[in-house]
Amino acid sequence: MKHVFLGLGRMGSGMAMRILDAGLPLEVYNRDLSKAAPFRERGIRVHETVRDALDGADAAFTMLSDDHALRSVINRETLRIMAPGSVHVSMSTVGAACSVETAFLAEGHGVRHLSAPVFGRPEAAASGKLRLCVSGDQPARLALAPHLSSMGEIWDFGKDPGAAPAVKIAGNFMIASLIETLSEAFSLVGNHGVEPEAFFRMMSGTLFDAPAVRTYGELILAGSFEEPGFPLSLGFKDAGLAKEAARRTRTPMALASLLEDRFLRAMARGWDRKDWCVISDLQKEDARS
Amino acid sequence: MKHVFLGLGRMGSGMAMRILDAGLPLEVYNRDLSKAAPFRERGIRVHETVRDALDGADAAFTMLSDDHALRSVINRETLRIMAPGSVHVSMSTVGAACSVETAFLAEGHGVRHLSAPVFGRPEAAASGKLRLCVSGDQPARLALAPHLSSMGEIWDFGKDPGAAPAVKIAGNFMIASLIETLSEAFSLVGNHGVEPEAFFRMMSGTLFDAPAVRTYGELILAGSFEEPGFPLSLGFKDAGLAKEAARRTRTPMALASLLEDRFLRAMARGWDRKDWCVISDLQKEDARS
Amino acid sequence: MKHVFLGLGRMGSGMAMRILDAGLPLEVYNRDLSKAAPFRERGIRVHETVRDALDGADAAFTMLSDDHALRSVINRETLRIMAPGSVHVSMSTVGAACSVETAFLAEGHGVRHLSAPVFGRPEAAASGKLRLCVSGDQPARLALAPHLSSMGEIWDFGKDPGAAPAVKIAGNFMIASLIETLSEAFSLVGNHGVEPEAFFRMMSGTLFDAPAVRTYGELILAGSFEEPGFPLSLGFKDAGLAKEAARRTRTPMALASLLEDRFLRAMARGWDRKDWCVISDLQKEDARS
Amino acid sequence: MKHVFLGLGRMGSGMAMRILDAGLPLEVYNRDLSKAAPFRERGIRVHETVRDALDGADAAFTMLSDDHALRSVINRETLRIMAPGSVHVSMSTVGAACSVETAFLAEGHGVRHLSAPVFGRPEAAASGKLRLCVSGDQPARLALAPHLSSMGEIWDFGKDPGAAPAVKIAGNFMIASLIETLSEAFSLVGNHGVEPEAFFRMMSGTLFDAPAVRTYGELILAGSFEEPGFPLSLGFKDAGLAKEAARRTRTPMALASLLEDRFLRAMARGWDRKDWCVISDLQKEDARS
Repeated sequence: MKHVFLGLGRMGSGMAMRILDAGLPLEVYNRDLSKAAPFRERGIRVHETVRDALDGADAAFTMLSDDHALRSVINRETLRIMAPGSVHVSMSTVGAACSVETAFLAEGHGVRHLSAPVFGRPEAAASGKLRLCVSGDQPARLALAPHLSSMGEIWDFGKDPGAAPAVKIAGNFMIASLIETLSEAFSLVGNHGVEPEAFFRMMSGTLFDAPAVRTYGELILAGSFEEPGFPLSLGFKDAGLAKEAARRTRTPMALASLLEDRFLRAMARGWDRKDWCVISDLQKEDARS
Repeated sequence: MKHVFLGLGRMGSGMAMRILDAGLPLEVYNRDLSKAAPFRERGIRVHETVRDALDGADAAFTMLSDDHALRSVINRETLRIMAPGSVHVSMSTVGAACSVETAFLAEGHGVRHLSAPVFGRPEAAASGKLRLCVSGDQPARLALAPHLSSMGEIWDFGKDPGAAPAVKIAGNFMIASLIETLSEAFSLVGNHGVEPEAFFRMMSGTLFDAPAVRTYGELILAGSFEEPGFPLSLGFKDAGLAKEAARRTRTPMALASLLEDRFLRAMARGWDRKDWCVISDLQKEDARS
Repeated sequence: MKHVFLGLGRMGSGMAMRILDAGLPLEVYNRDLSKAAPFRERGIRVHETVRDALDGADAAFTMLSDDHALRSVINRETLRIMAPGSVHVSMSTVGAACSVETAFLAEGHGVRHLSAPVFGRPEAAASGKLRLCVSGDQPARLALAPHLSSMGEIWDFGKDPGAAPAVKIAGNFMIASLIETLSEAFSLVGNHGVEPEAFFRMMSGTLFDAPAVRTYGELILAGSFEEPGFPLSLGFKDAGLAKEAARRTRTPMALASLLEDRFLRAMARGWDRKDWCVISDLQKEDARS
Repeated sequence: MKHVFLGLGRMGSGMAMRILDAGLPLEVYNRDLSKAAPFRERGIRVHETVRDALDGADAAFTMLSDDHALRSVINRETLRIMAPGSVHVSMSTVGAACSVETAFLAEGHGVRHLSAPVFGRPEAAASGKLRLCVSGDQPARLALAPHLSSMGEIWDFGKDPGAAPAVKIAGNFMIASLIETLSEAFSLVGNHGVEPEAFFRMMSGTLFDAPAVRTYGELILAGSFEEPGFPLSLGFKDAGLAKEAARRTRTPMALASLLEDRFLRAMARGWDRKDWCVISDLQKEDARS
């Protein structure tokens, strides 16, 4: 069985390593070959082209940056060289529409599709503590359960290939909303002479005692966004995915629009590579807090 | 020592009962006398006028509906009949500006001020599980610790009488933001064929595993807003307090503005007495979800 | 007949001079007496207190900065010293609610009320080219037609004292919206390599060939906001009046909320005394245009 | 010389007729042949395929519904069959990015490009009273001046093929903003007992005395949107173009986002075929006005 992982960025490399650590066979590919070095050192087969990687593959896991990258890897030319009855596991955060189109295209070439976007930062990827939103071909999901479980916890959303991506996009929208909410709340209490830290201790210790609140609250309070766990450019991309999904399904989302504007304003500052929590700096600037 | 509690609404009656249950002496007042019946039955002294209640009082706890109600109870005329060195404990959710003005006015009449607005629904009030945001006269806070503790957990925010109200207002803003966020997320996944319940199970079971998320998510999913834990009219009032505090301290808050508009739109429907989660019905209506 | 004008700011002084130029008798008052000098030099009676000004007055025109200033001049104490059957002509831009309350209070003291807020910058006030929105006591309107006409064009909105103020507030909302619209459009074309001036020439020469468009478009393009025709602080006040009117009548206005946030953000920069078109600088800053 | 016009919708048919009325030679094409009947009756050559239409063409005017339609007509396959040195005049309202890409693609095939999107409703198209925003190949603009002038007034924006589309998009944004502004203002005065018509007479007779204000104000006041001069679906498309242009050039536009949400909410109601002024019905509904 040829199983291959395409996309060895900060998330993908951790995920592929977890599959390997679980003792499962895996070959890898990355456009920038230098990132594949740790795999080569471990004796893992590293492909130099997408074609080599996918040729005869029984399962292909993709973890790529966006819709465009996914389409450049999984398309008419490459689907036809995969093994009959093979599976494409699409783990990137891409548009719900792109997921569905990719799934239909695969189906037309006899390749089964599993959408499996993930929640979690690079540390969680490296330690197998991601949360996977999974939907699509159910026999494929069962067959690949060991691989999926090695990367984290599986949350099943049924057969529709667009379901899991929608869940991922909506979840990221919730986090973005949380960042903005905390930013505004901190500046309001700050402008009333209350230390934002004291306010946050109460909120995160009572009503809002949740992992996301702790993670993002502490990042915002630390106020240093130079080493991104998740860069603004991806946050902006995800805000765009939410809006695209909203438009396509005629789902007005006033708050999602506000958030996209915030990210756009931060992008216009050239903050692409900072952590996406950097939008809190805009609030501080506006509120002189 | 004459301690008196003014305002026996759904929150206040539970809070006053808790003080009594702790074995502390207390007299009560409510504009609508019928609500005082449970206290009279218990043998508690019930005053028929604000003047009777405050005359010679050593401590007065107020739990009233808004700025206007507070000012009609605590003012030049009534402050001068309280005992010298007495304390006014202001527990209503009122504006930060109103709190500061009330505190200054009290100070001018030799009455100490403690701001102590609370988080928690009526059930929490009745069971002593509120969270109290406390700021103001620190010796008064210590002297009244038994009373305050009988009602719930104390979170201290220092000497500034405007601090605790700002914390309360910012906290309610966070809850309102959560309601809107969940409403939009549910409609987005719903319009992609995902059951909002399934999405919510994942979110509230992982990143957003917090009491407020569970409480409000379940309310929204249940979709029945006829018996309000917290009525829209108060949610709208609180959104107004956030905006007022923002305006006065020159703190632009784009999200707070969006939320006030949502509540206003629901008010225009005549939904004043429904639970404030009813704004999720607007999202459902807009998104046809 | 004693006719008196209270409020000799940049607008009021021009308006009072126009009444005098029409050969109509007028006495004046201003809190800061130095602004009354041109009137004294002309031999006009200048009162030193509000009481002196209103004592026995048959008609009082007020042009004051806001609700608070109006209430400090026209109230229970001063209404009772005006002549029986006299008229208060309220020309300030104040809240619709404040106008109605002031009118009712006057009525209770036998003083008739005419709301007559105006459109126009100081130059228009000085040259009698204002537009007056008038509503309230109709016989009073007819009796004072010479005075009103000396200041500009009369637009009648019937008997309701809240009508003309609502028209004024809605009109200012339209201007504020225009400023924001032009600011965003200019930055969009500018970021596509088109000179905003060229775009503006086309728009103001065709579809948007209107006085307000020319005035505000040219101000924004000139980009110098140090000498305000209308200061930001008043623009912010008027945005607040629009929101207050919206809240009281349960009229959700998403765009009005957005505009208030813009003005608030500019206020937080300390730009109170700049022209209200300065909000276009925020757009330029955001868009790097 | 073979000049051909592609796209005979409500706008295109009027525009093509104007060119013919000016005595200039023209052949036509439309996907739905029935719409070409009036041209056939007039003895004009009607092509049945895009290839036939463009084969050997010296100038091709396109007036199509959107980016997708334009790309399906003007692309690698069709550009290569046009005459050497020919001109493509792109008159559709399409994205600025799509315009630039189409221009570059044409250039690569030896076809010159002129962007010439237009302002005006179908009546203006039929009577040659459009406003044309023109940018791109300047010699081509001069050579085709008779054709362009037959359709309306020419406004030149230089050589950049993206300039004129940006002007068109920004202009439509201004109109959309006007529709929303009037809708909110009408509901505000209406909720204060003022007839929106009376308010509008004052505004459109003074500060806002502009063609667009009269046209759109009267449409909104008439309140009948069943026979669209410009359908909501196109308004929504244009709002999307503004946002796309904003995103690509990193130009945050808060008001443009608000407008897109409004149009999306109206689309979700299934109002696609109504006039785009129908968004005023949402405001009426929200404000109970």
